[in-house]
Parts: sequence; structure tokens; C-alpha cells
Amino acid sequence: MRRVLIVGTGLIGASVGLALKASGFTGKILGWDANAAELADALAMGAIDEALAGREEVVSASADVIVLATPVMAILDWMQRLAPELGEGTLVTDVGSTKREIALLAGELYNKGGSARCLAGHPMAGKESGGARLAEANLFRGATWLFCPVAGETVLEAEWRAMVAGFGAAVRDIDAERHDVVCAWVSHLPQMVSTAMSAMLEDEFAGDSKGMAAVQAIGGRALREMTRLGSSPYSMWRDVAMTNTENVAATLWALEQRLAYVRENLRTPELRAEFLKANTFRK
Amino acid sequence: MRRVLIVGTGLIGASVGLALKASGFTGKILGWDANAAELADALAMGAIDEALAGREEVVSASADVIVLATPVMAILDWMQRLAPELGEGTLVTDVGSTKREIALLAGELYNKGGSARCLAGHPMAGKESGGARLAEANLFRGATWLFCPVAGETVLEAEWRAMVAGFGAAVRDIDAERHDVVCAWVSHLPQMVSTAMSAMLEDEFAGDSKGMAAVQAIGGRALREMTRLGSSPYSMWRDVAMTNTENVAATLWALEQRLAYVRENLRTPELRAEFLKANTFRK
Repeated sequence: MRRVLIVGTGLIGASVGLALKASGFTGKILGWDANAAELADALAMGAIDEALAGREEVVSASADVIVLATPVMAILDWMQRLAPELGEGTLVTDVGSTKREIALLAGELYNKGGSARCLAGHPMAGKESGGARLAEANLFRGATWLFCPVAGETVLEAEWRAMVAGFGAAVRDIDAERHDVVCAWVSHLPQMVSTAMSAMLEDEFAGDSKGMAAVQAIGGRALREMTRLGSSPYSMWRDVAMTNTENVAATLWALEQRLAYVRENLRTPELRAEFLKANTFRK
Repeated sequence: MRRVLIVGTGLIGASVGLALKASGFTGKILGWDANAAELADALAMGAIDEALAGREEVVSASADVIVLATPVMAILDWMQRLAPELGEGTLVTDVGSTKREIALLAGELYNKGGSARCLAGHPMAGKESGGARLAEANLFRGATWLFCPVAGETVLEAEWRAMVAGFGAAVRDIDAERHDVVCAWVSHLPQMVSTAMSAMLEDEFAGDSKGMAAVQAIGGRALREMTRLGSSPYSMWRDVAMTNTENVAATLWALEQRLAYVRENLRTPELRAEFLKANTFRK
């Protein structure tokens, strides 16, 4: 593993570049981003060594490992575009938020005799805002980095897994379908709830400056935490909603039912049982 | 203001005692709690100077200010029990999470010629767990402390407000009805959502040890924050649900509708508008 190409040099992509360098990788890191400012930031902060000039250069670049660090729909596009150009010696991996569609496409276009390999991955790290400027070499320290394993691991895959472990991440394998179910519960549902609560409060109080001032004065840590993810950009979450629609819809539906149950039991002993069950989950 | 009696020496009550001492109050602090261990802890840590022996001693104690720091239903009980025993020179105040029923009762039993005064209050501070052992002199520093003002402020009320400002809290007045509406949005709804999400995850994964392990490994800051309040005790929230039922039910109903809207628009441009509105709230 001498040359790594990072496609998408935002928060996660640039952090991968910084983490590679911090953990002793001495090869060359190429980078490209559709947003010229993100690309320039990543180069200026040393997350990449060389900025590629355009999409054609990405396709023709020579690299051992290509890290796709864009939103999921663009990852799928890049996988299709790159597959016919790459040989057996190349590993494509990604950091996308959903894995079922990526693993399906990897099975169709990669991981066969003569084709490049594709190992779908997902670091459980991020911030509510994106961008290369927020990138950190330590972003993945202590975080779980999931892989959806492919049969017959190659040397390059083993090398990439070891590198990720060197970032300080806990590497863990998971089936792609299972990934999308669990992530709907622990990541996508919390995001949609936080967005919905933030948008609802905006509708409720934006036209009432005294009310909004009261909300800001009275709202404490609980409100800040429950709405923090309301800052998250649509650009990333659109692709999660598009590629994990059924699982996310199922968790939303389940929570709607649960909130109705709480609402109907505000004055009954059932509320006690709900609090005790919640206490158990948090133990 | 020479003698303060704190009824309920848990997290908030004991923190009031510690904050009084830290801000230079040199009078005597009496305390009582229905839980003997909480009372002993508060005495041992110096949050109170003297532990009263029982409910009768609370009623007959001589104090200038009585701080009711129990859950709301017990505050209402104490207000009824104390009113006939107290004279004009005494101020009763409280730290309860809802204010409408307390202010109504204060209007009926207090604040009249010959009766004691009652100034309803609510510090927007706390932790997801309770108990005197977690009490801190600085718990109220930087927090908003709300009062529901009564016409014709007495010297003792002014003194209590000044003392609270000395705790480092930002004192702010609010109408009791308005308090309960705003707190339903910024405090009670976040609590019920966090409890419902925690209880739902417990139901979904508790019987599946591999699944629960995956939830714990994969769930990051978003999950931790969105379920943190799941640790909150029923004992306190029961009284909020009992005394602010209609407002809490209205916010839950609104969020149910909002989540259904998000669910129905996971693949439409309406989701973009929802994210942008949430981004605006968080700005």
C-alpha cells in the first residue's frame, strides 16, 4: 500500500488522510473533491499530498487503495464509474452511512476474478457539521469502524484493516443488511427525531421573538442535546433516507406509536413501567 | 433572612443549601426529607445545619424562608399543610418543574392579608440522576431561575431573589401558564422522547444479546445524547405528567405528526425543507 486516493475530502475524507499520516503511513495521498474549496482546505492542512484536477484524473489515477468518502449516492456512482477501469490489484473501500446498496453493487461489479476488490466500510464517527476544516487525525480514536466482509481477504484488505486499527478505531465486522437495520435504530432515527424536533420548534416559535427568547433562556442541556443533530446537513442525510428508506420508516413508525402510547398514559401507572424500562436500557 | 428550611434535600434541595453557604449566607439552614438516607447525606455534606426529625417538626419549625424542593405533587401537599400554620412574615418558595397548579394554589392559600407569601420558582438545572450526593454549590451557575411573580414584592422576596442571583443563576420572570407551555416544549417533550426511545430500544434488543452488543458498539454520541434522559427517575416525572398533562400531550401529538410527515417524505424534496428549517433553529 503505497498510494491512497481519497475521493471526497470533507470532514471524514480529510480526517482519513490526517489519520493515515499520524499513524505512520509514508506513501502518497492523492485527493479530489467536487467542491474546490474543500479540496484546497484538505491540501493546505496536509490531509492530502496532491489535489487531482478533475473526475477524469480520479478515474485514471494510479492508486492501491481508493477511499470513497462522499455521501452514499455519489459512492454508488463512483463504484460504477471506477469498476471497469481498475484491475485486481486495487482495493476500493468507502465510509458511507448505509451499506446494503453498496454491498450489493460490490457483489455485482467487484470481488470477482479479474476485477478490483471492494470492501464496504463505515466509521461510526462524525460531527454535526461537515467540512475539511473540522477534520482531525484523532476523529476515529475510540470509535467503531464497521466492515461488511468479503470472502477471501486479500493482503491489501488486511493492510487497510490494520491501518484503520492504527487510527485508534475498534474494527468490527457486520452483515450489510444487519448494518442498515441497526444503524436505522441507533443513528438514522436519532437524526430524524432531532431534525423533526428542531424544525417543529422553529415553526412554533420563529414568528414569536419573545417566545424564542424564552425557549433559548429556559431550554437547557436537554434541549441542546436533543436538537444538536438538527444542524446536520441535508446533503448527507438525503442519501441515507434514499438508501435505507424502509428501515428508517419502520423505526419512525415504531417511535410514533410509542409516543402515542406515552401520551395516552401520562396519568396511568403504565408511564412508570415505561420509565423503568428506559432506566434499564441506560444501565 | 436568618433561618431557611429546605423541605426535600435531594439533588436540588441540597444544592440550594450548598449554594446558600457558598454565596455567604450565615444564618441557619434546617432540612427534612422523607428519605432518611438523603437527609443524612445532606447533613453530612454540610448542605443543611440541622436535620428535622419528622413532618410535625417541619410544620412547627421557625423559618423565614421555606424552600419546597420535592416533586410537584408533594409541593402542593406541603403548601396546603403549611398555609394555616404560617404567618405574614414567612416566604414559601419552591423549585418544582411545573408552575400552573402551584401558582393557582398560591393564589388561593397565600399572598393575602395575614397569610404567608408564596413565590413559585423553577431553576432550570438538574441532572439525569437525583440524590443529595450529586449536589453541587455551583449547580445553578449560568442556569436560568424562573419566578412566577406575585404583585407587591416583599422585602423577603427581594432578598430571596438576590440570593438566587448570588448562586450565579440568571433570574427571569414568567407567567405560570406560559411557563408550563414553554417547558412542555423545551423540557418535558425532550424527556418523554428520550424515555420512549430508550424503552423502545430495550424492547427491541434486550432479548437479543448480539443485537444489544451491536447497538452499544455502533451507537455513538448521537444515541448517547438522545437517550441520556432515559435515566431520569419516574418519581419526579410522574408529577410533571400529572400536573402538565394537556401541554405535554399536545407537544407529543405534534411530534407524532411531525415524525409521520418526515416518514412519508424520506424520498421527496420536502425532507430538504425540513432539514433547512432545523438548521435555522440551530443557528
